[in-house]
Amino acid sequence: MAGVSFVVEARDGRARAGRLTTPHGEVETPVFMPVGTAGAVKAVLHRDLREIGARILLANTYHLMLRPGDARVAALGGLHAFTGWDGPFLTDSGGYQVFSLAALREVGEEGVRFRSHLDGSAHLLSPERSMEVQENLGADIAMAFDECPPGDAPREAVAGATARTTRWARRSRAAHRRADQSLFGIVQGGVHLDLREESARALVELGFPGYAVGGLSVGETRPDRERVLDQVEALLPADRPRYLMGVGTPEDIVDAVARGVDMFDCVLPTRNARNGQLFTSRGRLSIRNARHADDPRPPDPDCPCPTCRTASRAYLRHLHQANEMTAATLMTVHNLFFYLDMMRAMRQSIRLCRFEEWRWETLRRLADAEQIGS
Amino acid sequence: MAGVSFVVEARDGRARAGRLTTPHGEVETPVFMPVGTAGAVKAVLHRDLREIGARILLANTYHLMLRPGDARVAALGGLHAFTGWDGPFLTDSGGYQVFSLAALREVGEEGVRFRSHLDGSAHLLSPERSMEVQENLGADIAMAFDECPPGDAPREAVAGATARTTRWARRSRAAHRRADQSLFGIVQGGVHLDLREESARALVELGFPGYAVGGLSVGETRPDRERVLDQVEALLPADRPRYLMGVGTPEDIVDAVARGVDMFDCVLPTRNARNGQLFTSRGRLSIRNARHADDPRPPDPDCPCPTCRTASRAYLRHLHQANEMTAATLMTVHNLFFYLDMMRAMRQSIRLCRFEEWRWETLRRLADAEQIGS
Repeated sequence: MAGVSFVVEARDGRARAGRLTTPHGEVETPVFMPVGTAGAVKAVLHRDLREIGARILLANTYHLMLRPGDARVAALGGLHAFTGWDGPFLTDSGGYQVFSLAALREVGEEGVRFRSHLDGSAHLLSPERSMEVQENLGADIAMAFDECPPGDAPREAVAGATARTTRWARRSRAAHRRADQSLFGIVQGGVHLDLREESARALVELGFPGYAVGGLSVGETRPDRERVLDQVEALLPADRPRYLMGVGTPEDIVDAVARGVDMFDCVLPTRNARNGQLFTSRGRLSIRNARHADDPRPPDPDCPCPTCRTASRAYLRHLHQANEMTAATLMTVHNLFFYLDMMRAMRQSIRLCRFEEWRWETLRRLADAEQIGS
Repeated sequence: MAGVSFVVEARDGRARAGRLTTPHGEVETPVFMPVGTAGAVKAVLHRDLREIGARILLANTYHLMLRPGDARVAALGGLHAFTGWDGPFLTDSGGYQVFSLAALREVGEEGVRFRSHLDGSAHLLSPERSMEVQENLGADIAMAFDECPPGDAPREAVAGATARTTRWARRSRAAHRRADQSLFGIVQGGVHLDLREESARALVELGFPGYAVGGLSVGETRPDRERVLDQVEALLPADRPRYLMGVGTPEDIVDAVARGVDMFDCVLPTRNARNGQLFTSRGRLSIRNARHADDPRPPDPDCPCPTCRTASRAYLRHLHQANEMTAATLMTVHNLFFYLDMMRAMRQSIRLCRFEEWRWETLRRLADAEQIGS
């Protein structure tokens, strides 16, 4: 069984509409991948994800290697059999989490030695170990192990991490074995265009079936991010999927698609839902606000999602205030539908060569809504 | 719109199979009502409840009067419109919770003055106020306001509470106005057969469209409970539904149906699910147990519920250990399916005049399973 393949089927400016074929089905791009950290999108069952149009999930290597353990997942048949999600999975490399969650990190050329944030046990995450974990998990797409410097790191630190990410990408590729899993490279380099160029050129030279842009959405300005995306887009091969990791707001995603990005993941729609923040076509809505207590309208009167079809703001606010778990479920379903539906509309606009029109209309509507409130 | 009506359609011994017709649809009895304390069954969406066969939900007057407030629910169209559950609802009287949850209770002939366990605000719950709250909530079935003495109360205390419950039942009936809502009386009397008789005769004299047995499942022995049910069954009119409040285990329910009970509610299947305890045809299963960590089998290989069709013990254990909300959802769906499916089988066995056979087979299977483990 081969890994993934990718075709760009339509272009409008630099925006692309394509198709990613994986061992577990096809995915139309640009695509948003809901985050299923521990092998489950928080608060939503798989079948509800399918119903609202989720096609590919992201799962976190760092979390799963610690619990329930990658060898256990492998013995149970891999992530698909273990979780029951029969569509494609992508696993991240563990790099981002080991730099943001793990205790007592020691970073060296070999990899990162750390202690689990769960039980303090000692672990090593290296390119070779990340490949072993990701092959055990068995996602359709695995990511090369990368070093993620903090957003405020000085240039020298970013330069060091970028060079190491390239060396680790080489080791990742050498260690990766599974033919039914595709390994993507990750471009680092912070907001430094020369480092981004160096990173992108080195990875393209190594050759991967897909490329991610890491190290963004870590506090950089929007112009900085746009410059990085412009730079990287020009260097990456046009026939390979491009994945912007951990981004972002609806506006961020629209802007990145305009710069040729095909794949996204972000915890924003799911995490915000659990905190009572809803994305709507009329702007964001905080369900905690007392003005919703007597409001019989759905969160978004124009939204056809299962939540807006059945639940009022008053009911959602009540469930949220009463700490009922179904509050998180209903609001996560809505927020993910909002994101997935936006991706559908965006794909269609690209295929109809109306992306720019759709883009400005959407951004203006979102901006107006922010000012007006909903 | 009339309230509920009830027909007994089949009998086998004292067990009855019937049909409860409500303003929001028909319900076959014996029936189990999942508990939706705050207007939502914890962790499960309405449509999943419908899919597994739930037909009528219980909601708690005490909780809803405090949050979001019964006047607010009324302004939003009542419980059905507010929650989106379009099947029948039953609300309890608030009596049980005010005696078990509220702070600084003062019980007098007028009612119970107490402070909210949420914010310390002062409230009165009386027969008249309970009727007002329940009419505001607008369930298909309301319950008369009763005094629930603790399970270990001395006989004199139980006698006083029983007599007061009768006086409060009279006041409840006098205060109750809504024609589209049926008011059931509650028989009290603890484990004292003479008090139970006194209570049942007085309530039947008042005349209600249905009768509940309260004050059981509060620590009494099984023989004591069986004696009370035998006693009460003989005194209640055969053409009215009988509701055993807050009971119980699968075995408890089977035994009560054998004694002519038609309706049940209990938090056991939902609460146990959230704690990782599953009911199966092969006995109870604690998903926390480490032996499930590598087990690819569903919780109950013979169970056709949505959870057992898709999730392994290993995955459920992982989700539970990782504090994923979907663990609660998946396990609640299974436990409620187990209860609701047992009720279906029981109804069928009564209609086929094979209830006793079914009963002993079921009880033996459950007992064997407890010994063997699963």
